Amino acid sequence: STEEVLDFAKASTKTLTLLLGSIQVFVLVFFLFGTTYSPEDYSPSEYQVFRDIMVMLLLGFGYLMTFLKKYGLGAVGLTMMLTVIAILLNVPVELFCRFLFGEKEDTSFPLPLKVPTFVDGEFSAATLLISYGAVIGRASPVQLVVMAICQSFFYAFNKVVIVLGFLGAEDVGGSMTIHMFGAYFGLAVSKALGPPKVSSSSNAEPSQVSDVFALIGTTLLWVYWPSFVGATETGVSLNENVCVIHTVMALLGSTIASFYLSQKLGHGKLDPVHIANSTLAGGVAVGSSARLAMTPGGAFLLGMAAGVVSVYGYKYSTPKLEEKFGIYDTCGVGNLHGWPSVLGGLLSIVFVAMNSDAEFLNHEALTQCVAQFLAVLSTVAIAASTGYVTGKVMMKTVGEAPDEYDDSLWWEGEYFEAEEKKEKV
Amino acid sequence: STEEVLDFAKASTKTLTLLLGSIQVFVLVFFLFGTTYSPEDYSPSEYQVFRDIMVMLLLGFGYLMTFLKKYGLGAVGLTMMLTVIAILLNVPVELFCRFLFGEKEDTSFPLPLKVPTFVDGEFSAATLLISYGAVIGRASPVQLVVMAICQSFFYAFNKVVIVLGFLGAEDVGGSMTIHMFGAYFGLAVSKALGPPKVSSSSNAEPSQVSDVFALIGTTLLWVYWPSFVGATETGVSLNENVCVIHTVMALLGSTIASFYLSQKLGHGKLDPVHIANSTLAGGVAVGSSARLAMTPGGAFLLGMAAGVVSVYGYKYSTPKLEEKFGIYDTCGVGNLHGWPSVLGGLLSIVFVAMNSDAEFLNHEALTQCVAQFLAVLSTVAIAASTGYVTGKVMMKTVGEAPDEYDDSLWWEGEYFEAEEKKEKV
Amino acid sequence: STEEVLDFAKASTKTLTLLLGSIQVFVLVFFLFGTTYSPEDYSPSEYQVFRDIMVMLLLGFGYLMTFLKKYGLGAVGLTMMLTVIAILLNVPVELFCRFLFGEKEDTSFPLPLKVPTFVDGEFSAATLLISYGAVIGRASPVQLVVMAICQSFFYAFNKVVIVLGFLGAEDVGGSMTIHMFGAYFGLAVSKALGPPKVSSSSNAEPSQVSDVFALIGTTLLWVYWPSFVGATETGVSLNENVCVIHTVMALLGSTIASFYLSQKLGHGKLDPVHIANSTLAGGVAVGSSARLAMTPGGAFLLGMAAGVVSVYGYKYSTPKLEEKFGIYDTCGVGNLHGWPSVLGGLLSIVFVAMNSDAEFLNHEALTQCVAQFLAVLSTVAIAASTGYVTGKVMMKTVGEAPDEYDDSLWWEGEYFEAEEKKEKV
Repeated sequence: STEEVLDFAKASTKTLTLLLGSIQVFVLVFFLFGTTYSPEDYSPSEYQVFRDIMVMLLLGFGYLMTFLKKYGLGAVGLTMMLTVIAILLNVPVELFCRFLFGEKEDTSFPLPLKVPTFVDGEFSAATLLISYGAVIGRASPVQLVVMAICQSFFYAFNKVVIVLGFLGAEDVGGSMTIHMFGAYFGLAVSKALGPPKVSSSSNAEPSQVSDVFALIGTTLLWVYWPSFVGATETGVSLNENVCVIHTVMALLGSTIASFYLSQKLGHGKLDPVHIANSTLAGGVAVGSSARLAMTPGGAFLLGMAAGVVSVYGYKYSTPKLEEKFGIYDTCGVGNLHGWPSVLGGLLSIVFVAMNSDAEFLNHEALTQCVAQFLAVLSTVAIAASTGYVTGKVMMKTVGEAPDEYDDSLWWEGEYFEAEEKKEKV
Repeated sequence: STEEVLDFAKASTKTLTLLLGSIQVFVLVFFLFGTTYSPEDYSPSEYQVFRDIMVMLLLGFGYLMTFLKKYGLGAVGLTMMLTVIAILLNVPVELFCRFLFGEKEDTSFPLPLKVPTFVDGEFSAATLLISYGAVIGRASPVQLVVMAICQSFFYAFNKVVIVLGFLGAEDVGGSMTIHMFGAYFGLAVSKALGPPKVSSSSNAEPSQVSDVFALIGTTLLWVYWPSFVGATETGVSLNENVCVIHTVMALLGSTIASFYLSQKLGHGKLDPVHIANSTLAGGVAVGSSARLAMTPGGAFLLGMAAGVVSVYGYKYSTPKLEEKFGIYDTCGVGNLHGWPSVLGGLLSIVFVAMNSDAEFLNHEALTQCVAQFLAVLSTVAIAASTGYVTGKVMMKTVGEAPDEYDDSLWWEGEYFEAEEKKEKV
Repeated sequence: STEEVLDFAKASTKTLTLLLGSIQVFVLVFFLFGTTYSPEDYSPSEYQVFRDIMVMLLLGFGYLMTFLKKYGLGAVGLTMMLTVIAILLNVPVELFCRFLFGEKEDTSFPLPLKVPTFVDGEFSAATLLISYGAVIGRASPVQLVVMAICQSFFYAFNKVVIVLGFLGAEDVGGSMTIHMFGAYFGLAVSKALGPPKVSSSSNAEPSQVSDVFALIGTTLLWVYWPSFVGATETGVSLNENVCVIHTVMALLGSTIASFYLSQKLGHGKLDPVHIANSTLAGGVAVGSSARLAMTPGGAFLLGMAAGVVSVYGYKYSTPKLEEKFGIYDTCGVGNLHGWPSVLGGLLSIVFVAMNSDAEFLNHEALTQCVAQFLAVLSTVAIAASTGYVTGKVMMKTVGEAPDEYDDSLWWEGEYFEAEEKKEKV
């Protein structure tokens, strides 16, 4: 009831105020005393890449998650909050991880702030939003802020210290460091949160309008995905070019394969969930290998496989995770980001082997293949274990919510009261 | 009823599976064995143009067609499917047409894949989506895939072999090869499909929400249109500049003229159809002449004329086509893409004559004028005849649909059943 | 009732036709005889900036204002109309103002038209749309066109002749010339229009769907804001870079501060109005100082302050303006654009003092500080006085509307009649 909701919101505002306040003070001090201007040259392309990825975060991820008919404000609004927190925290945390790992060139202090610094922040935000997708509608804002704080460390540790640092794996477009980490972190958090309330299950459905909103996210993610995959190659003309071509081919592959399989499994009817999500699986899978000479046909084939894996994931993996493991995945991030990134990560072994003389690789052929394999293993392991711990911490922060998947828990709006009256009648 | 719908979907899934499966195998083989990397330099501008046009296709055209209150998933979702099929098929088909016509420089095999190759694919997708607009809500996914396959050949033949090849006409922004071809092809398909069911007419209406969704498409098309018109001039600084200036002036002209005329004809009330569509007519009309010295004022005047022609088209041409010719045009593509492109194509004769010494023209003054005129004629003739044949082929593929303009025919969703129950009560 | 609405629309169409017709004739003559091509070099970045700001105008401002549940067509549709009128009128009017002020380099006639000419037009459109936000749903299309015509002069006079001309103030991102002018002009117009009808107050509310539409505007404005602030520095690499960095930091600051304060004031619940608007306040405030060495931390702090000022504005300033001054502000532009721009304008005095040796400043330290202060004063004074006069002129044009905040007044649509029937039952 309305009163219960108000009490619950009131009970959590103290913690939320403290957390958001602390973050603000911490990053303000860091940016005031820990950053400076970069003496390096600036290229407008850097900003364009930053801007394109920002479209993917605020609108792409934000609207993709609006498919829940009663959680549109939470989807877009809390996406804004989480994105901003992730970017702000990532700058000091990644700097700290680079200190830990001891790469000399990137650890100058105060940090010379450049647009690519923010792009790194966007990558961490993408990872957080993927995890958010697993628990959207169920984790409260307080819990989400806790998740953002914890993940900012674990994400940076896995990426900077382990995958790119110690292992020297190839992962230009973040299949492993971003999609895989975000998905399994989120699923582990969800495991820790436990099953959703039975009474809220009707809220978790889409409406036709909310499904059309969700496709805003899908289509924007599709369009700007090549900017994401090629982001760190900005200015390196040849690599940029192959990243774009491979990403486009992979997305074309996952899109046509998703339509093919969705109507086949649905006996002539398409499932909006597959079309909104699995069409993008090629972009997830291509990330690790995008600047390798995987050939356009190879990227297309990988994309098709990713689309197939993703659609089958929605059909078979989601119910199994719920029934056997008690893991509830609101947006199906395990199917869009999880399985396709595992596929892409493992197949990067093949592409690395085929292109072992690429100058940007860190090891000779066999070692690099092993590094790719270990990067998959360690990312899944670190994500799942730190995610589970994070979820347990999140469970300590606020009591049980009176309802789920419902904006009226966390947002003011006279229309919520009107709606409630209507439902009572 | 629900059962009828399920039976219809089941009956068509066999053909759809075969068609989508065959396309996938064909393009996979082509891209694996028929393409290679381009040794040429890459410029980030190429990708930016590709990306901008992709926004126009997936979001611009996709959301522009969401005005049908019950067909939002079909508008955006099937737009994704058709766009991807068109791009994938266009690459081998256009290569084949260049072989036919025998231009030496573009026929190397395996084809060196560049981002502009995909941009050509986007042009064919735009053409297909225009045709889709004429039959949206009525043609089934199976029929649409048949349309996509057939049009990929006819479109490429008209553009590569006839208009730009044999005739050497000037059409930098595709008024003729894209808008005119897409519109008359779609109208001819619609003629072949016959009249819509009377019982479905209430589905074909907009709602206030679906009209606001449609304006997402309008505004995005407006914003990115200059990228479309100037796409092939990327990197040719002077031409890019005049293409942008002329396209903006033309859009400003069609927008203000559409508002002027719509409220005048509506006695003080604006028609959402005019504002969603006719405002863009300037972009359609300016395509043929955009890199000629048409002057900013000339482009503005052309845009105003295109807006006027388009609004009058919705008022007079649409009812006449329905009553006298049995041609039903769901989105009114004849008014947004048809008449304005005829206007733009014919007026390109004037602008060519005024600027006959432009170095990029293929002929001396009089011959070029004749070429422009013949390009209009042949485009309309080829589009209408091949479109009609395509429509007849489409009619052979699946039986009569139990309903029209309704997502529940082709999409799964519990909300459809809830909706049906509500309507019964 | 429907008849009253039809009569009102009919009564105003004569004036609207005359106004829109005159504008078309005037600008057509100007562009035909008063403009020419620019011999200068063109850079693709110019178009990209134009395009990004166009996204902000047509989609950003347009959808931000769709939060009114019954005024979505008016929000997006009339935004298109006003944007186009503002751009078209700004070109001749600003040229005229430059003649008045006598800057030699920019007054060549016929005017060499470049893409940056349109960018100046976009700035005037942004100003007009801010003013529109204050009176949306209440001013009729006729009144809005009158407002557009009047403001085009007053805006250009304040910007070209006073702030940047006579005073030589620093305002690279338009905190004063755009946001402050637009906000106080709009509030003054609203004062002149008087209070809204009591009977229409239920129309002025949002729905959950309209709030989700509004966030499309918010997120797009967020993403493209750095293009807006750095627009005039396109090509000046160093300034572009700091403009981007400062704008991003300011937006990060206002976003996190808005979430912090909104849930605090709402006892754990977020107010969609704050999240849709105040999150952007950092972008408003940073405009005056963005290319000064304000440091990343300084920009973040300014953004946080702007977010706080904006949220408090919605809580305290809006009710006070309504009750004490009879000023009704539909979108709360006084809180998003007004207070934050005053904050940013006044703090630009500090940043100018800290960075007084910047080569782009027009005066030595103390004089420049005084210029900044006088620019704030004169902008508020000119905007408020000319806005009030404009509002009075607007009141002379059409009679009292039968209703407010309702698309059915100005748009055709069968769904309006269906809606009306439903409400009667």
